[in-house]
Amino acid sequence: MTHTEQRTPIDLADCGELAAQLRVDSVRSSTSAGSGHPTSSMSAADLLAVLVARHLRYDWDDPHNAANDHLIFSKGHASPLLYSVYKAVGVVSDEELMTGYRRFGQRLQGHPTPILPWVDVATGSLGQGLPIGVGVALAGKKVDDLGFRVWVLCGDSELAEGSIWEALDKAAYYGLSNLTVLADINRLGQRGPTELQWDLAAYARRVEAFGCRALQVDGHDLDAIEQAFIAAEQSDKPTVILARTVKGRGSSEIQDKPDWHGKPFPKDLAERAIAELGGERDLRVRGPLPTVKASGKVGDDSTSVQLPTYEVGEKVSAREAYGQALAALGARTDIVAMDAEVSNSTYTALFAKAHPERYFEIFIAEQQLVATAIGFSVRGYVPFASTFAAFFSRAYDFIRMGAISQANIRLVGSHAGVEIGADGPSQMALEDLAIMRAVQGSTVLYPSDGTSTAALVQAMADREGVVYLRATRGAYPGLYPAGEQFPIGGSKVLRSSDNDQVVLIGAGVTVHACLAAADQLSGEQVTARVIDLYSIKPVDIDTLLTAITATGGRIVVAEDHYHQGGIGAAVLEALTAAGRCEVSLAHLAVTDLPGSGTSEELLAAAGIDADHVAAAARQLIKSR
Amino acid sequence: MTHTEQRTPIDLADCGELAAQLRVDSVRSSTSAGSGHPTSSMSAADLLAVLVARHLRYDWDDPHNAANDHLIFSKGHASPLLYSVYKAVGVVSDEELMTGYRRFGQRLQGHPTPILPWVDVATGSLGQGLPIGVGVALAGKKVDDLGFRVWVLCGDSELAEGSIWEALDKAAYYGLSNLTVLADINRLGQRGPTELQWDLAAYARRVEAFGCRALQVDGHDLDAIEQAFIAAEQSDKPTVILARTVKGRGSSEIQDKPDWHGKPFPKDLAERAIAELGGERDLRVRGPLPTVKASGKVGDDSTSVQLPTYEVGEKVSAREAYGQALAALGARTDIVAMDAEVSNSTYTALFAKAHPERYFEIFIAEQQLVATAIGFSVRGYVPFASTFAAFFSRAYDFIRMGAISQANIRLVGSHAGVEIGADGPSQMALEDLAIMRAVQGSTVLYPSDGTSTAALVQAMADREGVVYLRATRGAYPGLYPAGEQFPIGGSKVLRSSDNDQVVLIGAGVTVHACLAAADQLSGEQVTARVIDLYSIKPVDIDTLLTAITATGGRIVVAEDHYHQGGIGAAVLEALTAAGRCEVSLAHLAVTDLPGSGTSEELLAAAGIDADHVAAAARQLIKSR
Repeated sequence: MTHTEQRTPIDLADCGELAAQLRVDSVRSSTSAGSGHPTSSMSAADLLAVLVARHLRYDWDDPHNAANDHLIFSKGHASPLLYSVYKAVGVVSDEELMTGYRRFGQRLQGHPTPILPWVDVATGSLGQGLPIGVGVALAGKKVDDLGFRVWVLCGDSELAEGSIWEALDKAAYYGLSNLTVLADINRLGQRGPTELQWDLAAYARRVEAFGCRALQVDGHDLDAIEQAFIAAEQSDKPTVILARTVKGRGSSEIQDKPDWHGKPFPKDLAERAIAELGGERDLRVRGPLPTVKASGKVGDDSTSVQLPTYEVGEKVSAREAYGQALAALGARTDIVAMDAEVSNSTYTALFAKAHPERYFEIFIAEQQLVATAIGFSVRGYVPFASTFAAFFSRAYDFIRMGAISQANIRLVGSHAGVEIGADGPSQMALEDLAIMRAVQGSTVLYPSDGTSTAALVQAMADREGVVYLRATRGAYPGLYPAGEQFPIGGSKVLRSSDNDQVVLIGAGVTVHACLAAADQLSGEQVTARVIDLYSIKPVDIDTLLTAITATGGRIVVAEDHYHQGGIGAAVLEALTAAGRCEVSLAHLAVTDLPGSGTSEELLAAAGIDADHVAAAARQLIKSR
Repeated sequence: MTHTEQRTPIDLADCGELAAQLRVDSVRSSTSAGSGHPTSSMSAADLLAVLVARHLRYDWDDPHNAANDHLIFSKGHASPLLYSVYKAVGVVSDEELMTGYRRFGQRLQGHPTPILPWVDVATGSLGQGLPIGVGVALAGKKVDDLGFRVWVLCGDSELAEGSIWEALDKAAYYGLSNLTVLADINRLGQRGPTELQWDLAAYARRVEAFGCRALQVDGHDLDAIEQAFIAAEQSDKPTVILARTVKGRGSSEIQDKPDWHGKPFPKDLAERAIAELGGERDLRVRGPLPTVKASGKVGDDSTSVQLPTYEVGEKVSAREAYGQALAALGARTDIVAMDAEVSNSTYTALFAKAHPERYFEIFIAEQQLVATAIGFSVRGYVPFASTFAAFFSRAYDFIRMGAISQANIRLVGSHAGVEIGADGPSQMALEDLAIMRAVQGSTVLYPSDGTSTAALVQAMADREGVVYLRATRGAYPGLYPAGEQFPIGGSKVLRSSDNDQVVLIGAGVTVHACLAAADQLSGEQVTARVIDLYSIKPVDIDTLLTAITATGGRIVVAEDHYHQGGIGAAVLEALTAAGRCEVSLAHLAVTDLPGSGTSEELLAAAGIDADHVAAAARQLIKSR
């Protein structure tokens, strides 16, 4: 075993040795773990050797240097290769590689996650690393000015994902010459050949038709790789290097054979492959450094924010209040916004007008919308992404993965529920609260008026994780005076007395139904407590417990959402966790598929309007 | 007003009159409704006039003729145009058009849904009609043999959706010459110009790079449209007709102006536009008929199905049992299957091997995977689509819309929960039960052994709506003898006695934890009932009620899923609906982001293994 400490970019000729080490270590680590993807790592080893040794400008001693290039493994299953790179640059020890990979409690997980300081985002759901890389490159090109490049390693199988083409389209549209894609065209997917196999020309036609530069190279020819990287660095367009590679390259027994995807080499085979590759090495290399050192801290001049104010009784829609609040919040230079071609409906247009340099039109490509937000989060910005609430469902895998990436993104969905009226069910988010609640570590908010919307939009900006706000389409009278506080995890008791017989719980549009129901009931000498549960996750369990104690556990929950997993479930789960299930709960929610109509007609038909809330309350009081 | 009854294809020259009528009626219907998208309808009116009058082979008197062509409005917001076509062919009256459109309780909804017999699928979430059209065309090309064509009208804004490119890629891959896309390139999106505006050549490069034929035409030149349709009919490839059109065409005040997306014309403007278009008409046209009449009934020879059998104690994974059961079920010729390039992991490969003519490889494109299933559902087949459970999240908008389409699709997700082990969180479905439960009318199943898996796979085939089955990765001992029945909506009581102190509820992998916990407890003279809740939606409320009565309401629910919206919520919602909330429920579910490890390590770390179930049971008994 040779051990060479190398602190300056090595000669291209020596990259072959480095590549051999990366292959050997990919085999060793996955065999030691008993699982992993050595063959998918071996195909890309030459690309990574040349990149890391000679082109990636990265200060491995300071991963937080904001001027570092970004290296994203969109093919996250090639984690043995990534971790072998980390060993080669000296930030992960051989011991950790051999005893930590894929083991419980260790950081070298099966697919990379940002638990490692050099990893920007979790990958492993294919077709996501590139879209997020586009977001990072967009931040670098249009907002940052640090000159970093973004290098994304893609597999060929994932080029079948539509999200890849949304990404390349936006990369070209925004002229992201700082983005280079290394496409590892190794011909073989998990269960057999890919669609296009080694037809690099077909890939090139697609890449060029989408406005990017395509370079075709032999992915095992170090000179060709070097020239392609130089060309990419000098390109005025995003570049996709289409590298013809061989899966399992370096093991003559395995290479280019199907049925070896995602399988570690048995011990004897590993030994033969390592011998064929020239044995173990302990090369240490460092490539070029970024030209500057920069703090990752993005400006945050929050003192200058003047939120919009609304009067009690003033009619404003939550979506309009969101747009106005976001535009005001834009006084903070860390706030960026993006929308999927509906900014006139979501009112993000107000931000776009006030801060055009920090607004990004993503057109109708919701996966790229969320990926762009995650990319800006990687760069330390505070992104707000908006579209119709129903259409975030298009990007749910990105949102799910965003949580694993520990991304801090704010999603604002307008036009939720049957309340939207005539457009019909395709435009009605009726499952968004369920799906957003199920995201690990998420926050789910649902304001009912202008004041609470503006306050929650401001609160979102400083909240970590995936934060979702549901913004009602219609305009409803203001319930709260300007300046009222709305802490996340709180709620508002809008009506209460010392002898409340029932508690009516709503959020968003159903808060207004609950208030009107309470008015109806008060005419019948029934006193109802009314809670505005504007924070669906986390939920204000203390106020709920106080209310059930006061009302003998009579609860009506009304929500403009299907029954499953929404506000009712949030209340029930919280009461259960608190050990206080002894309630009588009437759960009013949408059951049948709605159609078109007016808001009033549809809320009534779904059984979630004031009349239904009052009737449910009467029934509870009568029966218990 | 002229009234011309026309029962044979009209001359091309007369299609201008028909187009004018379609424009006039699009203006009239949306103005009468006070909402809708007249300008997006007017741009495509010439395309539709020529199509419907001369090329679409459709028996309007028999929409169930399986030999009919298919007409799908991927740009569902052009519903005024579609409904005006329905008037022109005489299946919707002018009165219905003028008084029913977008009104409550009516069938002419804001966006088309299959509540109308001529509509195959709900559209309105852009970029879905074409992928589903590809599924329909695939059925026509590869399984059916009725010679129908599929015509899909797309907007230009939706061409930014990645799903469009997944669709065209698969259309070319499968050689779907029976598919024609009418791309209405009217240059203007909702809030301004599209990315590519009228750059038809740029679109053509993309279409051709993805393997389809592109034809560029003036979308208001009837001759050019006619020639394009003829060329499409004769093409050996899928054809995309890129039609340069003008939004709002026909109203000189409005046409090609931004800010008129999705807005009805005010009454005065509508009057002027109608006058400019030559006034109201009442043309009736019928285009060509299909050459044959065919029943939509697909063969179903269910008597020949011999399900695989498993012994009690025999170790088999649910995913393998799924693959074996599906292969057996394939004796029915109405069963088709598709997978996103992981069929060796999901074991759908067994079906592919047994019935290659009814298996479709979709590669890594989960949106197209689900769209293909929906397309086969349109044609009356019984589609099973499979991938890792986590990756159905990529297609959630398609699943949501599938419910609105009343599609009958079966989705089987393998590799769920922390149970999968070393691959880490990107591959772990931990929110799938929540998101699938929230789909309107859905069914959610989660078997625990080979026998129950096989039985539920068979039951899925005859279940309507969106049916989801979660198939565990690991092999666990069989709990049930061959032949045991597993009705959907049922459950199994695996342990019970007359003096049970607590009920342990699990599904899938946690059933085994609950059984082991019951064994532990029985050694301590604690008797625990154990329920296998294999049907998560609908849930077996009767068995739950019996159990809580028997055990004093002491319940432990353990699930390999996040806390929100999963099995715990299903139980709580059901008990609430039954008015029986008086329980003490310990809810064991995944809280923190998991990492890599063995199944055992990860189940223990998440607090959902046998030891944790037993401890929770002890605590419940102690505290109450």
